[in-house]
Amino acid sequence: MKIFLYGIRPDEAEYLKQWNALNPDIETDYTDQIFTDETVDLSKGYNGVVLLQTQPYTRTALQKLHDFGVSKISVRNVGLDGFDFKDLRDLGFSLTSVPVYSPNAIAEHTTSLILRLLRRVPEFDKKFANADFRWFPTIGEEINGKTVGIVGTGHIGSVVARLMMAFGAKVVAYDIKPNPYLENLGIYVDSLDEVLKQANIITLHTPLAKRDIHMIDEAAFAKMKDGVIFINAARGGLVDTDALIKALDSGKVGGAGLDVLESENDVFQKKFDKISDVKDPQFQALLNRDNVIMTPHTAFYTTTAVHNMVFDSLNDNVKMLTGKAPKYPVDISEN
Amino acid sequence: MKIFLYGIRPDEAEYLKQWNALNPDIETDYTDQIFTDETVDLSKGYNGVVLLQTQPYTRTALQKLHDFGVSKISVRNVGLDGFDFKDLRDLGFSLTSVPVYSPNAIAEHTTSLILRLLRRVPEFDKKFANADFRWFPTIGEEINGKTVGIVGTGHIGSVVARLMMAFGAKVVAYDIKPNPYLENLGIYVDSLDEVLKQANIITLHTPLAKRDIHMIDEAAFAKMKDGVIFINAARGGLVDTDALIKALDSGKVGGAGLDVLESENDVFQKKFDKISDVKDPQFQALLNRDNVIMTPHTAFYTTTAVHNMVFDSLNDNVKMLTGKAPKYPVDISEN
Ligand SMILES: NC(=O)c1ccc[n+]([C@@H]2O[C@H](COP(=O)([O-])OP(=O)(O)OC[C@H]3O[C@@H](n4cnc5c(N)ncnc54)[C@H](O)[C@@H]3O)[C@@H](O)[C@H]2O)c1
Ligand SMILES: NC(=O)c1ccc[n+]([C@@H]2O[C@H](COP(=O)([O-])OP(=O)(O)OC[C@H]3O[C@@H](n4cnc5c(N)ncnc54)[C@H](O)[C@@H]3O)[C@@H](O)[C@H]2O)c1
Repeated sequence: MKIFLYGIRPDEAEYLKQWNALNPDIETDYTDQIFTDETVDLSKGYNGVVLLQTQPYTRTALQKLHDFGVSKISVRNVGLDGFDFKDLRDLGFSLTSVPVYSPNAIAEHTTSLILRLLRRVPEFDKKFANADFRWFPTIGEEINGKTVGIVGTGHIGSVVARLMMAFGAKVVAYDIKPNPYLENLGIYVDSLDEVLKQANIITLHTPLAKRDIHMIDEAAFAKMKDGVIFINAARGGLVDTDALIKALDSGKVGGAGLDVLESENDVFQKKFDKISDVKDPQFQALLNRDNVIMTPHTAFYTTTAVHNMVFDSLNDNVKMLTGKAPKYPVDISEN
Repeated sequence: MKIFLYGIRPDEAEYLKQWNALNPDIETDYTDQIFTDETVDLSKGYNGVVLLQTQPYTRTALQKLHDFGVSKISVRNVGLDGFDFKDLRDLGFSLTSVPVYSPNAIAEHTTSLILRLLRRVPEFDKKFANADFRWFPTIGEEINGKTVGIVGTGHIGSVVARLMMAFGAKVVAYDIKPNPYLENLGIYVDSLDEVLKQANIITLHTPLAKRDIHMIDEAAFAKMKDGVIFINAARGGLVDTDALIKALDSGKVGGAGLDVLESENDVFQKKFDKISDVKDPQFQALLNRDNVIMTPHTAFYTTTAVHNMVFDSLNDNVKMLTGKAPKYPVDISEN
């Protein structure tokens, strides 16, 4: 059995090596290039492919893959936006993804953003760089005793809830499908509005359904407490960024931790010569504020997560190739 | 009843105002100057004094205070090094301190240092400033699944233990006087050496007893796992800083988070023109390393802590003045 992997980074290659050692019967090969009309030929002679990219998977490349006799595709992440499922159906492909690779990674990053904002780390960093080692007047706040609002308590939000309760925060959560374990702890309120009204710290952990685009808009910010700490490590489109910028300008939002941005595809994962070369006006408006911390979609980026992305995608590809039920099948019957 | 407070910072003045509103019968006044031979006269006509300073409390000033009829002294912090208890005994003073003002403040700061080191925040900050928004190869680690060693499980260490367990770490702790609650959770090992050997992350939370000076020396570092994360937010003297610097140079220590330093009195709480003006060689040797985060003894510095320092010291001063038992009396019978 032979599997070909596309778009493999050096950190992923390490885990591929580990997987190979545990699966000596299966032959793998890989490229650091992504899956395109030009590179599809590399998978000729293989039984399955494992992919990861933000660029679209073209009909032409998929057709060729089909012609090579490959029918099992596994992607190493959650995102399936690059596929037209109709292509997959037409060509008889089966697909798996890795919808959960490490909720702890994102929950820990969220906690780190909250702590860095509450303890005014950007200001202390500047003071330190200027050889000013006095603490006054840069006084911090504690998570302990605060009310933390969590929107979405799935894989990630439920870890955030556990952590915040351990810190001694009061958690108020909202989810359209409450989690029974957390329900028994009595943390749910009846609406998003209740979370917005009660919380000193608000963090988003829902997917980006179409109805949830700009879930947090000008009206939502207006309902929040003055000086609220606002965290988004979910999806940029959940927040009306212009409304966030206004809320920062007015002081309504006292601090923002942003791992995702509406326009991040033009900025994150890229390298510019200098910060002023980034042309995105929202990014520029958020920059250079002591109370805004932006991280370039790195919340997920831990050794545990990358290990799981490589291992789970390969294991599922093998399962499909051997006629067994994969752990994370993707329903391609509609889109 | 009249109380005079010395060394009051503007952030403390806020809490003094709150305390006054709750205690309208008691008159207070204050200065931002510390208690010295020159400023002692300000307390003439008052019944009690509340103090906070690192400089010594002189016999001359204490004698004058005694002559003014003041016999109740409350300090707003833990540190009592500035007193010669014999002076206090000779002059008939009673003393209170605030030994615990916010364990959560220090435990949260400790957690923040761990997260920042594991997620390589100093490197990401540099990349960001250079307009490099790619995550590879700056991969992070999670607390989840790590073994965290805690030395000293008193007020602060026990909060750190609670937090690390919530993150899904395995906690191994050592204390000369184990805490029964934590003992029942089975987290204690039999010696400091066991903690040093087993832990991926080690954090100190003991006082600086004479026998514990350089508790963590070259031999101790040698026992640790390669690449260990080492945190000290307790007391600088617990660590042989030169041994730490060697361990960083060799890669034995993979990251260090230091809120305290052996020689911090020459650096922290001061302002220099530029970083190179700091003459302390240990400080300079620790500087500019991507895997070292120094914070200028700010772990305690939260609104909760400052509130408690002001409120508890004043409440205890009033208790002594009204013949009631204070919450935090200091035993001055020996030193
Ligand atoms: N920043 C990163 O690196 C990173 C990495 C992975 C995932 N994510 C994002 O994190 C988010 C959460 O991921 P997850 O794995 O926890 O997802 P999940 O599907 O396990 O949980 C999402 C939860 O949100 C709830 N929900 C859906 N719509 C809602 C609404 N309108 N209001 C309230 N609750 C709603 C669902 O009922 C579910 O419980 C997703 O947006 C995902 O894209 C970010
Ligand atoms: N960085 C800051 O801003 C800051 C602020 C407050 C306190 N601190 C420091 O934090 C430390 C802990 O404070 P705390 O309030 O938790 O003290 P605590 O007295 O409540 O707890 C200390 C614990 O250490 C144990 N211990 C003593 N010697 C030991 C040894 N040799 N080995 C193992 N355990 C030992 C004690 O039994 C006790 O359980 C102190 O050093 C204090 O100075 C730092």
